[in-house]
Amino acid sequence: MLKDLPFSLIEYGDRIRKTKEQMIEQGVEVLLLADPANMYYLSGYDGWSFYVPQLLVIILDEEQPIWIGRKQDVNGAKLTVWFHPDRILSYPECYIHADERHPMDYIAYILKMIGQGSRRIGVEMDAYYFTARSFASLQKNLPNATFIDAGLLVNRLRMIKSSQEIEYMKQAGRIAERAMLTAMETIAAGVRECDAAAAISHAQISGLADCGGDYPAIVPLLPAGEKSCTPHLTWTERRYCSEEAVIVELAGCYRRYHTPFARTAVIGPPSPPIRELGEVVAEGLNAALNVVAPGVTCAEVAEAWQRTIQRRGYEKESRLGYSVGLSYPPDWGEHTASIRAEDHTILQPNMTFHLIPGMWLEEYGVELSETFRVTEAGCELFSHFSRELIQRPAIPNIVSPFEDGA
Amino acid sequence: MLKDLPFSLIEYGDRIRKTKEQMIEQGVEVLLLADPANMYYLSGYDGWSFYVPQLLVIILDEEQPIWIGRKQDVNGAKLTVWFHPDRILSYPECYIHADERHPMDYIAYILKMIGQGSRRIGVEMDAYYFTARSFASLQKNLPNATFIDAGLLVNRLRMIKSSQEIEYMKQAGRIAERAMLTAMETIAAGVRECDAAAAISHAQISGLADCGGDYPAIVPLLPAGEKSCTPHLTWTERRYCSEEAVIVELAGCYRRYHTPFARTAVIGPPSPPIRELGEVVAEGLNAALNVVAPGVTCAEVAEAWQRTIQRRGYEKESRLGYSVGLSYPPDWGEHTASIRAEDHTILQPNMTFHLIPGMWLEEYGVELSETFRVTEAGCELFSHFSRELIQRPAIPNIVSPFEDGA
Repeated sequence: MLKDLPFSLIEYGDRIRKTKEQMIEQGVEVLLLADPANMYYLSGYDGWSFYVPQLLVIILDEEQPIWIGRKQDVNGAKLTVWFHPDRILSYPECYIHADERHPMDYIAYILKMIGQGSRRIGVEMDAYYFTARSFASLQKNLPNATFIDAGLLVNRLRMIKSSQEIEYMKQAGRIAERAMLTAMETIAAGVRECDAAAAISHAQISGLADCGGDYPAIVPLLPAGEKSCTPHLTWTERRYCSEEAVIVELAGCYRRYHTPFARTAVIGPPSPPIRELGEVVAEGLNAALNVVAPGVTCAEVAEAWQRTIQRRGYEKESRLGYSVGLSYPPDWGEHTASIRAEDHTILQPNMTFHLIPGMWLEEYGVELSETFRVTEAGCELFSHFSRELIQRPAIPNIVSPFEDGA
Repeated sequence: MLKDLPFSLIEYGDRIRKTKEQMIEQGVEVLLLADPANMYYLSGYDGWSFYVPQLLVIILDEEQPIWIGRKQDVNGAKLTVWFHPDRILSYPECYIHADERHPMDYIAYILKMIGQGSRRIGVEMDAYYFTARSFASLQKNLPNATFIDAGLLVNRLRMIKSSQEIEYMKQAGRIAERAMLTAMETIAAGVRECDAAAAISHAQISGLADCGGDYPAIVPLLPAGEKSCTPHLTWTERRYCSEEAVIVELAGCYRRYHTPFARTAVIGPPSPPIRELGEVVAEGLNAALNVVAPGVTCAEVAEAWQRTIQRRGYEKESRLGYSVGLSYPPDWGEHTASIRAEDHTILQPNMTFHLIPGMWLEEYGVELSETFRVTEAGCELFSHFSRELIQRPAIPNIVSPFEDGA
């Protein structure tokens, strides 16, 4: 059977080579990757198994990586990685959620058995699924190893996208457009928040006729009414009411590549302060996008935004955006460059960012965002959707087509 | 505004009291909870913000917990926790994904400022969102504290559900039934895997007319065809083919309470070996459920299964089930009791388990599972659905109603 690998063997080879260059630079002989996005990036492995410990091992003096995970997931690894199945190793099932032993104890044993127990080992100290206990187990069981924090080593390589990655993000951008359209057609007074979320989720996963959707790393975020003053509360069973603002932040996802974007709906005519906030955010977003070009820094993009909204008497403390692309739950950000005053990363062609100037005031908020790639001359958006506040019906006689009739 | 708290203040008080009893037993003066399920259990906090460091702090000699998180999420905490807003503290936005500082550095500073920096501090060493770097930061910044692994301290309290929790799980069970019905009505030769996943996700989130769904901690797992030999690969854009087995593992989720269950569809008439495997798994599942009662151990339930399938010449290495209920991504298991030979946990009324005797052979697999609660006399299921293999149309002229026509 021919595997449907997301990237060519040449591209994987190139990524491994660049990873090893960075390993040499940081004095790392063996790199242990726990971040599922980094595992996927270098191996192709793609399963919802990151809820148990698993690692991709890059050894400086060996050509192919080694995958180590749960025995139950070995078949999944065989079906998805590009390298030889002999390099897929596992720990026994009795290590799962057992008080007296931890999967990383066995993984350490494997590392010792394959002659890597006394080397300079890079670990991703702040990766979501590399817990404090996982690290303590490695330290205890590999007393002759030297551990080095190689956090973000691979994430940094992921910042500039290849043409295949940009292709996947373009597909994701089309899916995101469709999902946003669905959201804006569904939200109205009288519709339950969960029914809007369900319709969005359906559009995200079904995708389009020529490209099916993957699961986004974050669920649709739909803060509404009094909750629009905060970005991360999820939906409830409540029905939307007239005069509410409803923030819609969602991503399209295609083969694990994300293009998030946000718009804000208002139910009925927007009140003057929300309308003004919507205008200010749109003006600031335009100003920021206008300065994006190779050679410009993240800080300069943030400053363009800041100048624009300050002229209107507004302020924003949180960062304006972040590098985005390949991800797994719980975040679609890549945790490398941020668009903010303190970040002097220089923009380069095919870097991709989610520029999200959300403003959350005490009683309401507005989000309006775009995901873009840096081009040779400026930037290109992945989704195209009106930047106005979207006005939705305030009369609660609209029955959602998605509502259960039972 | 009156908050729509998921539990009464009496129930929260009771949980805090039991937590403190365990803290005393384990010699913990200050408990730092990073597991979002444990944070929700004791505080009501419910937001998709666990992708940045945040903690619930239980102090032995203080009545109310303290929530510490990102500044942007303070409004979300104010809207969801049961305790006084003065007890909601935050770190500044400049700590988010910054190379030179980590949110836990600031959290350690807060703990010192509120007089808790030199105490016996319990941490959840193996919680998903408590990374190696988070712990290293606490150790470095609180040199006078003594750290104790209090992992699963709160998870263990969650094992026996209250009547309100059982009520939420019953609603989740109804949602799960509906989602499974949707899956089984959708899957057929010619339908794309992503369209089946989209339909299931819609049913999970929309829920029912009288109870809207919450997001499950795991996406629908739909291994099909050659991938049915492994449990954790997610859907693709491929179309289902005749003679494939399609495993459907999904959960209903209501107010963060989960009831997962699995069934297996076959497209066209099942082949004799799959039919036999389906019968063996059903027989083993029945045998296991039949012995469930208060006083019986997890090991005894596993043995009933093992005896039954061994008689038919089968074996299963992985565990048979696990405690289930309140969860956040990436797992709906509670990481406490497992149904397996080595676990001697004694079943008690209102413990809840996902009994999942999946069998993955080299070329195909069958899953058939139930979530149940232990009753006074035996057990009660949360969802009701035929335990047969579900036969689905093999002729690829069925057009999915969910497919994009564009």
